[in-house]
Amino acid sequence: MARKVIYRFASGNADGNTNQKALLGGKGANLAEMAGLGIPVPPGFTITTEMCTEYMDKGGMPDGLIDEVKAAMAWLEKTTGKKFGDANNPLLVSVRSGARASMPGMMDTVLNLGLNDTSVVGMAKLTGNERFVYDAYRRLLTMYGDVVLGVDKEHFEDAMNVVKRQMAKDKGIAVPEDDEELGRVIPDSMLEAAQWKVISEEFKKILAAKTASGFPMDPVDQLVGAIKAVFDSWNNKRAQTYRKMHNIPASWGTAVNVQSMVFGNMGETSATGVAFTRDPSTGEKKFFGEWLPNAQGEDVVAGIRTPQPIKKGPNTAGKSLEEAMADNYKELDAIQQKLEKHYKDMQDLEFTIEQGKLFMLQTRNGKRTAPASVKIAIDMCKEGLISEEDAVMRVEPDRINELLFPMIDPKAPNKAVAKGINASPGAVTGKVVFSADDAVAVAEKGDKPILVRIETSPEDIHGMKAAVGILTARGGATSHAAVVARGMGKSCVAGCAGISVDYGPEKAVKENNDYSQAKFVAAGQTVKVGDVITIDGTGGRVYVGDVPKIPPKIGGEFEELLKFADKYSRMKVRANAETPEAAKAREMGAQGIGLCRTEHMFFTPEGILAIREMIVANDLAAREKALAKVLPIQAADFAQLFEIMDGFPVNIRLLDPPLHEFLPHEPDQQAEVAKAVGVTPEEIKAKVADLHEFNPMLGHRGVRLAVAYPEIAATQVKAILTAACQVQKKGKKVAPEIMIPLSLSKKELDLMKEIVDRVSKEVFAAEKTEVKFKFGTMIELPRAALLAHELAETAQFFSFGTNDLTQTTMGLSRDDAGKFLPPYVDQGVFEKDPFVSLDTAGVGELVQIAADRGRKTRPDISLGICGEHGGDPASIEFCDKVGLGYVSCSPFRVPVARVAAAQAAIVARKGDAEKTRTV
Amino acid sequence: MARKVIYRFASGNADGNTNQKALLGGKGANLAEMAGLGIPVPPGFTITTEMCTEYMDKGGMPDGLIDEVKAAMAWLEKTTGKKFGDANNPLLVSVRSGARASMPGMMDTVLNLGLNDTSVVGMAKLTGNERFVYDAYRRLLTMYGDVVLGVDKEHFEDAMNVVKRQMAKDKGIAVPEDDEELGRVIPDSMLEAAQWKVISEEFKKILAAKTASGFPMDPVDQLVGAIKAVFDSWNNKRAQTYRKMHNIPASWGTAVNVQSMVFGNMGETSATGVAFTRDPSTGEKKFFGEWLPNAQGEDVVAGIRTPQPIKKGPNTAGKSLEEAMADNYKELDAIQQKLEKHYKDMQDLEFTIEQGKLFMLQTRNGKRTAPASVKIAIDMCKEGLISEEDAVMRVEPDRINELLFPMIDPKAPNKAVAKGINASPGAVTGKVVFSADDAVAVAEKGDKPILVRIETSPEDIHGMKAAVGILTARGGATSHAAVVARGMGKSCVAGCAGISVDYGPEKAVKENNDYSQAKFVAAGQTVKVGDVITIDGTGGRVYVGDVPKIPPKIGGEFEELLKFADKYSRMKVRANAETPEAAKAREMGAQGIGLCRTEHMFFTPEGILAIREMIVANDLAAREKALAKVLPIQAADFAQLFEIMDGFPVNIRLLDPPLHEFLPHEPDQQAEVAKAVGVTPEEIKAKVADLHEFNPMLGHRGVRLAVAYPEIAATQVKAILTAACQVQKKGKKVAPEIMIPLSLSKKELDLMKEIVDRVSKEVFAAEKTEVKFKFGTMIELPRAALLAHELAETAQFFSFGTNDLTQTTMGLSRDDAGKFLPPYVDQGVFEKDPFVSLDTAGVGELVQIAADRGRKTRPDISLGICGEHGGDPASIEFCDKVGLGYVSCSPFRVPVARVAAAQAAIVARKGDAEKTRTV
Repeated sequence: MARKVIYRFASGNADGNTNQKALLGGKGANLAEMAGLGIPVPPGFTITTEMCTEYMDKGGMPDGLIDEVKAAMAWLEKTTGKKFGDANNPLLVSVRSGARASMPGMMDTVLNLGLNDTSVVGMAKLTGNERFVYDAYRRLLTMYGDVVLGVDKEHFEDAMNVVKRQMAKDKGIAVPEDDEELGRVIPDSMLEAAQWKVISEEFKKILAAKTASGFPMDPVDQLVGAIKAVFDSWNNKRAQTYRKMHNIPASWGTAVNVQSMVFGNMGETSATGVAFTRDPSTGEKKFFGEWLPNAQGEDVVAGIRTPQPIKKGPNTAGKSLEEAMADNYKELDAIQQKLEKHYKDMQDLEFTIEQGKLFMLQTRNGKRTAPASVKIAIDMCKEGLISEEDAVMRVEPDRINELLFPMIDPKAPNKAVAKGINASPGAVTGKVVFSADDAVAVAEKGDKPILVRIETSPEDIHGMKAAVGILTARGGATSHAAVVARGMGKSCVAGCAGISVDYGPEKAVKENNDYSQAKFVAAGQTVKVGDVITIDGTGGRVYVGDVPKIPPKIGGEFEELLKFADKYSRMKVRANAETPEAAKAREMGAQGIGLCRTEHMFFTPEGILAIREMIVANDLAAREKALAKVLPIQAADFAQLFEIMDGFPVNIRLLDPPLHEFLPHEPDQQAEVAKAVGVTPEEIKAKVADLHEFNPMLGHRGVRLAVAYPEIAATQVKAILTAACQVQKKGKKVAPEIMIPLSLSKKELDLMKEIVDRVSKEVFAAEKTEVKFKFGTMIELPRAALLAHELAETAQFFSFGTNDLTQTTMGLSRDDAGKFLPPYVDQGVFEKDPFVSLDTAGVGELVQIAADRGRKTRPDISLGICGEHGGDPASIEFCDKVGLGYVSCSPFRVPVARVAAAQAAIVARKGDAEKTRTV
Repeated sequence: MARKVIYRFASGNADGNTNQKALLGGKGANLAEMAGLGIPVPPGFTITTEMCTEYMDKGGMPDGLIDEVKAAMAWLEKTTGKKFGDANNPLLVSVRSGARASMPGMMDTVLNLGLNDTSVVGMAKLTGNERFVYDAYRRLLTMYGDVVLGVDKEHFEDAMNVVKRQMAKDKGIAVPEDDEELGRVIPDSMLEAAQWKVISEEFKKILAAKTASGFPMDPVDQLVGAIKAVFDSWNNKRAQTYRKMHNIPASWGTAVNVQSMVFGNMGETSATGVAFTRDPSTGEKKFFGEWLPNAQGEDVVAGIRTPQPIKKGPNTAGKSLEEAMADNYKELDAIQQKLEKHYKDMQDLEFTIEQGKLFMLQTRNGKRTAPASVKIAIDMCKEGLISEEDAVMRVEPDRINELLFPMIDPKAPNKAVAKGINASPGAVTGKVVFSADDAVAVAEKGDKPILVRIETSPEDIHGMKAAVGILTARGGATSHAAVVARGMGKSCVAGCAGISVDYGPEKAVKENNDYSQAKFVAAGQTVKVGDVITIDGTGGRVYVGDVPKIPPKIGGEFEELLKFADKYSRMKVRANAETPEAAKAREMGAQGIGLCRTEHMFFTPEGILAIREMIVANDLAAREKALAKVLPIQAADFAQLFEIMDGFPVNIRLLDPPLHEFLPHEPDQQAEVAKAVGVTPEEIKAKVADLHEFNPMLGHRGVRLAVAYPEIAATQVKAILTAACQVQKKGKKVAPEIMIPLSLSKKELDLMKEIVDRVSKEVFAAEKTEVKFKFGTMIELPRAALLAHELAETAQFFSFGTNDLTQTTMGLSRDDAGKFLPPYVDQGVFEKDPFVSLDTAGVGELVQIAADRGRKTRPDISLGICGEHGGDPASIEFCDKVGLGYVSCSPFRVPVARVAAAQAAIVARKGDAEKTRTV
């Protein structure tokens, strides 16, 4: 083969390195890197992702690949001094997936390959541990049967239970009917070599019966079958779902790592563990992890045995590795320091000690909580390990939200009913569900589900996504639930032994997926499906009912990070806010208001009354009378806003929504309004009917209202400028911007400009002062974007209203799309919900066109975005590329936007096409 | 002055000519042209439009213009041998406006300038007719007072009435209190020289009293005042409104014609008249016109005296000019022939005979009826006067409609009671009904119902089908009523605000669908169920009772014209039609179906039932069961369509409207449907609620339905291709095109293409034959236009759905815009209703982009338009420019489109920027 398709590695010697993740996958590239650094790794080789792609395209093994694998195996035999399938000194290997991006648990793995009826004898001789060997053999048979041959695991469990029942009988123990009960009475650990032997034989029989050719005794056949199965697992349903969630292209494919096996379960001098170079929860710089003596790696993650800490500490359960195996600990500690310095990022390590010898099985950048990611980035910057720009790049902007998660109010009277592991931060309240499907169903109804499980598995992903929080009875800080929840930014309390979960009748659950009778008991309280609980992922506590929470604050490393972000950004970040949220926006670091929706200010008792009076008015005089009542309310509001924003620009949009939105639609409310406004209920009803529209989104709203009723615009402009004058006279700076919504032609802007010019003259004369202000328009219709060169003749600024621009460009009603958009995302018509992340190909081109044409007419035109996309990192990157001056988003998205804006600028400056972010 | 600002003309001698309309106005250019041809015109001169523009810009008379006018007056005195303001042989002149485009009666005129207290004596001496002279003097005083000095005409009338009352008293007649009665008892014609003298004196007094300087005795002052007044009248309110209506730019300005006066009222050898070189009503080639002896021009038009015919004939009233003044007639007849030959178009002439001498006052292309315009064009072509292309250019495409429908007889005495939008042409008489069901019931009895609704909805379709005409109180030219009526070829007056509809007691209507007490009121008349009305969809008028009509004539010259049109077109014309209207489309010359809306075919009793069954189905199996009922109905429909279209392309759009449109919204109808479909009314109600959308236009419709329910698309495709195979097997040609609505991405088309490929294989195998067909998409969303290069990878054709493309590009709901669009057109935001005439700047750019990008991917891509704009001449011209292959419109617009398409091609070939059409 012309291309190099297999990369070998052994300690001190490797074909590949960490920069080849695209080709070797994350795991393969890092194994190669570790080997290259002289770190002890079990030798092995990596089959490139290109082979996976070719395998998928061709629908079968690429030509020549098997020969290459055989050659690599020959090298591996030479390196290890063992022989594959040998009766005396057999080589065992694992086959693992490893894609460019981490996809934990999504694809398949087969361990212990090379065992067969011959080598099992040799292995037993070599280790002197027959129990271990036959246990390993049955593990291979199960995994191979499940993953490669597609035989249901149930059959193996049934066969094993037959043996266990026999054993119970033999031991004179009452044989339980229930399988779970049986597992508790006769755990796997009770089985001896004899039982494992019988079980292995039974398993082989099952495979012979269920498949055409049975379990292959030829180790090369085993290996080829496993490689194919890993390739295939790239396209299993779990993996596809995960890729969709994480925007991983199907075209990447997975690499396959074939590696000589090492065993942590070969006795008391063997062990296995996982560790982080820093605390992944808090970011604290301390070596952190868990281990189990005489165990396989999967035992640590599975949560069956409770792992012990790596480092000794005050409140640690079980003996630490530091104490139990001091030499191995020292070596490991040196390695973890070396690796972190080398990778310049917090590492997530897997290791195994086989009969006193330490092997590193994996290193990768560690997943971490959002607070940890910030602390680590800032700490590493201070330690001189990374630059300020790197520190900014290290934080996933979307996860900044988590720093802003609410916490349980310490003053709240509620007592926790249980305590578990604080697996993913944030306090949330929601309705209890016990299955992933129920979580989805509850979320679809608009409720907030909290998914409670004994433990979670990759099959629960869709439910975890739908849930606001996850609570598990079993599993540690690195359990499936914990890892996935952190990745999703969902609150999670894991391994909460204080709750006892009962899924209800097994028949209902297994056959009908019916969890309606499920419940859990904690501190004597029974919590059923639909009951409200609160979980605190920051503190690891569980509460019954809703618990008061306190909103988060910015400070410490977070503040430092945001300062770095602002230093490297090319765009400013403003907020979409009115009073009083504007204060929160300032607190979040907003450098202005990008969108003040004046109609939000009407929703006060007196405001709404005045507006309703204006709407039901039948002539100009009556409208003006009502507007005179609106004026002081608005002016006071604007004055407050200018004071809060203290000289930062305040962009105020004139009345936008259709008028019917201000009138009630229910008869009794209509009667009430009629009374308050002083008309008959019939008049209100008639007005509502008159204002009814088939498509209000495309109806009488925005500037169209002002064209029909110029007096409304005049009143609002008067309120804005009067407030601005008065605040300025107090010695404060003001920078108002008057924005026209939904315009589609220069002519509309000209009509509005006339009003603004006239009113400003009047106000300035009355107030005996002048304020500088800007006049501009939203760009939220395709026509406005196309005719931007004309609009820019009158408008001094454009603000892209990408919500409506998305609606019109795609012909997609945001309020209605919920029903049919999900299948669209599922079927790949859209990569993402276009209301969340800007459709750059369609809507984006219009933004680009408008920016270009606007600047052509008016080179110094101010450009910004105020749609929801202004808080979405991918959209912010696009805005940076187009050269907008600012993005504006909701106050709580401001920190996200600040980091995203900085990252966009840094990436653009570096000219990197791809960002490498810590995930 | 460097520029030539004054153009002189006298018979046989002129500075200007007919091609200088922009500079000299229509009247001035034609006077110059006539003079140049040696035709007797009263000598005079024209002040250019540039002077008007300068006057407006400067706000006063351009420098040097008065000197130029004086010089021209000196020349005019020399030419006429008279002197301005002279006591012996005074020169009198008229001052008239004359813009580039005809604006009849919109601007001001002053006659008899040059009369003053001195010249009036000279004039009396010269004519020997003191009565005539003082009458002329008082006319000047009135006009000058009104037009130049701004004195209310009432004052003059009051003064005249004083004299008349004195005269009545003198004559011993009872003096009427009422002024109108006085006018009848003492008409102007009864007044003698003495009275006019007194009146002139009184008038001068009034002007002296009401103005600073009174009536100027200096004739040059008079002239300058009149010129200014004509300039000013360019911007009077009447003129501004007219310009807005006819899209005449304010920047054009008017020319001013100063011309020596001739008088048709100087005795029995004097006369005045208007004439046409052909009959403007029928187009017949015969000299046609009216005259009055001893009269001023205004007397002919005013209708006070009954004019006599120019040419003698069998049934003519009064003596003809041919008989009364044979020599003048002969001269006039020669001139009219000369002028028509010269202008190569039917001329509208004004002439005056002053004491036996003929003067031509005006010639211009004559207005004519639509049938006349066709006949004249074809006749002139046959006479060798104009080319075939010229003949095509001579007919205003919009007016072709008038040839296809009965017209209100212009001689009918009836007065319209209300005026609305002329939504679908033709005059019809019928019995008023207020509900679709009543329409059906009335039609079943053999009567002709006219369906009157506040507005129509898809639920009214069966009633609209049964009705002969539709009248709605709300909705614009593209409202549901208008679009459906045009598609069906039914007369429709829409948005008729002048009628107020009352459906009767709400309980009766809602619960029992009982409209028996419904009525509408228009112009104070109440019209009840069963009353006879006439609606004129061509003129947008509503009449009470039966009104005489003129039947349409198709064939003859009209057919010849359409043949010429097809010969010179670059685009084909197709029709938007289903069965049975497709037959009408062929009759109208459609060369294919550009849009078959499959959903229209569901509106049969069995079709709608099956569709409703499908909608309420809760799973795929139930949906497929219902669809199996839809299949044969659709297939039979398509087979009929293919047979009718006989090998012409038939473009079939898959289901487009949101499903809720097929379900009834009233409880009793829901109950009925529930019974028919076999579910509970609650289920229907729940389904309707479930399908409710805030913005259905942007909702779950078009291809989005097919993505959610691929089985619907599969059924429709199966019906199309099965029908096509079966018709082809009969030996007929078929050319089906399968069109996907509302797509916005290639991916959607790919999903649909998969279905089409699969179903086509199945059908071809089952039918044991294959048909060629095309697969393509509508372009009706901005995103689709922007991503046309991607869509064209899958689509073999694009059809521009410019209705929806306009809605989305402008963010304008067609169904709602009626309320706020009129002020938009009034204030000039839009030149025209963008649903009637394509917004070329915005929507048009997207069409251009899509065409360009589509062709880049697929150079032979088929491009067409099927929005309502496909029948609008201005939009058709745009389509020709963009290079579309066809336009498609409702059957009755097909002839319009054929002519418009030909004109677009002819204009493009000639490279003329401006078309000169006969108006």
